[in-house]
Amino acid sequence: MAKKKFIAVIGGGQCSKEEARLAEEVGRQLARRGATLVCGGLGGIMKAACKGASSAGGTTIGILPGDNSQAANPYVQIPIVTGLGEARNVIVVKSAQAVIAIGGKYGTLSEISHALKNGIPVIGLNTWSLSRNNLKDKSIIPTKSPTEAVAQALDLITSPKSKE
Amino acid sequence: MAKKKFIAVIGGGQCSKEEARLAEEVGRQLARRGATLVCGGLGGIMKAACKGASSAGGTTIGILPGDNSQAANPYVQIPIVTGLGEARNVIVVKSAQAVIAIGGKYGTLSEISHALKNGIPVIGLNTWSLSRNNLKDKSIIPTKSPTEAVAQALDLITSPKSKE
Amino acid sequence: MAKKKFIAVIGGGQCSKEEARLAEEVGRQLARRGATLVCGGLGGIMKAACKGASSAGGTTIGILPGDNSQAANPYVQIPIVTGLGEARNVIVVKSAQAVIAIGGKYGTLSEISHALKNGIPVIGLNTWSLSRNNLKDKSIIPTKSPTEAVAQALDLITSPKSKE
Amino acid sequence: MAKKKFIAVIGGGQCSKEEARLAEEVGRQLARRGATLVCGGLGGIMKAACKGASSAGGTTIGILPGDNSQAANPYVQIPIVTGLGEARNVIVVKSAQAVIAIGGKYGTLSEISHALKNGIPVIGLNTWSLSRNNLKDKSIIPTKSPTEAVAQALDLITSPKSKE
Repeated sequence: MAKKKFIAVIGGGQCSKEEARLAEEVGRQLARRGATLVCGGLGGIMKAACKGASSAGGTTIGILPGDNSQAANPYVQIPIVTGLGEARNVIVVKSAQAVIAIGGKYGTLSEISHALKNGIPVIGLNTWSLSRNNLKDKSIIPTKSPTEAVAQALDLITSPKSKE
Repeated sequence: MAKKKFIAVIGGGQCSKEEARLAEEVGRQLARRGATLVCGGLGGIMKAACKGASSAGGTTIGILPGDNSQAANPYVQIPIVTGLGEARNVIVVKSAQAVIAIGGKYGTLSEISHALKNGIPVIGLNTWSLSRNNLKDKSIIPTKSPTEAVAQALDLITSPKSKE
Repeated sequence: MAKKKFIAVIGGGQCSKEEARLAEEVGRQLARRGATLVCGGLGGIMKAACKGASSAGGTTIGILPGDNSQAANPYVQIPIVTGLGEARNVIVVKSAQAVIAIGGKYGTLSEISHALKNGIPVIGLNTWSLSRNNLKDKSIIPTKSPTEAVAQALDLITSPKSKE
Repeated sequence: MAKKKFIAVIGGGQCSKEEARLAEEVGRQLARRGATLVCGGLGGIMKAACKGASSAGGTTIGILPGDNSQAANPYVQIPIVTGLGEARNVIVVKSAQAVIAIGGKYGTLSEISHALKNGIPVIGLNTWSLSRNNLKDKSIIPTKSPTEAVAQALDLITSPKSKE
């Protein structure tokens, strides 16, 4: 049996139309390439990515912060109800083999950080960039399009050793 | 679209052969009746229930306590990696509309408690019974067979109002 | 330096006057005997225990479920803000060397279960009693008064080996 | 009664001698000015800050990721045992009114992010700087010395409205 691929898409609960378009396209391409989508289950980037994945017949998992599965966006097929507030961000990234970050604010940055802490690769689309003690940190892999982001994510999880 | 049914099966990470037989049968019947299985993702009751559900073509979700999806039993299709230790027990029950408890020790009892605290019905098979201040607490619905347990669980979530 | 003693007092967020009286006395005696009180930080049993401990010059820690330290009862000196909802129950018991349960409902039962799962002794005052497969489980140590409960708790943590 | 001041000091579990010196001085000054120190309870920056605070008679709280209070550094007076792994990072910052970040890697960055997400001010000493979509994010308040960092933190929590 081929190993399952789980990719998280993270970003703001509110986002611009352009960001939503990117997220929907990322979701669609992940589904077409056989990856299961993991996200935080709410609106904005999460909803757009789930919509794209659903439209292409993919599976969508939403790791919800609250106590009610009804809070999930309508494209979440598998709602996980944590009741943990933003501590659920840790679960979103740990449940994925790679993370695609689109835009986002501090919640997204916390997910990026938890992913990098755990050695899970992070692919960025119009998102954060980091410096530490004035030295650029290059851990977030920058990409210019949904196609490139999805390709990078899938490439990294199928041949993790060839990258660093 | 018919609303999805999510049922948690809880019980010990180690269990007797008889308990495993019950859990496998519960998993199989849940799958046959279209319910998605939620569990803690490890061995014992969890593994037996996932095995039963998988054998009948069902979907299985494992909410794992550790940091590695490899710890999931081989019948878990959707591993959720929490890294939260036993605090993940809360997520197992909150992600379900009803809980079937088979045997189990204190971890199972914590899941039963969290479910009852959240108003999620608990169906019991050879499991805990409770008294408070010497008064019997009848919240755990006792059943005598996998068939009865699954019937009760599905009945409760499809017509929750007719029960109390 | 003498090792610090941390004792959790658990019970309902609402409670009877008689239960509050018991909790306040437990808190007072814990403080007099040099133990730090750990609790869930809210009302009912938690507030009464903190009040008793404060009145005797003791230290009180409240592990809060929500996002705001203002939710702590006025006798909590050290509010820990978790935002985790009831998953914080796990932290209340893990941060203690022994647990005294007074009355309580399912939230309290979840704390009792998590404590027993972790090998942390539980002393009961008018609280739950447990049976598994119709066999009485004697893990909760029953006591008849605050004095006896506090004595048991402190005895167990200072000479854990002499008990089983 | 004057309101209690809780300040978190965050940074790597391993750190340079120079960073440890900064953290110890931050801890000492926080204690002298009456603030309680909150940290992750382990080594590196956390240990140095606790050492400094203890040396000046301050109170130190360690929010531990594991299941054992013995993992706390020897200067932690109040160990909180979470068993949550790095999800405990959320609790460290939520339990504080301001956060001082010294150096640090991705774990520290996750704490910075969770703090900013919750509107808790972050003061930086030789730590991360952030950009989003190539625009500098100025939320982390840069300082040049322990004295300046502590002054900023205490100033912000005593007169939060006069700042933005």
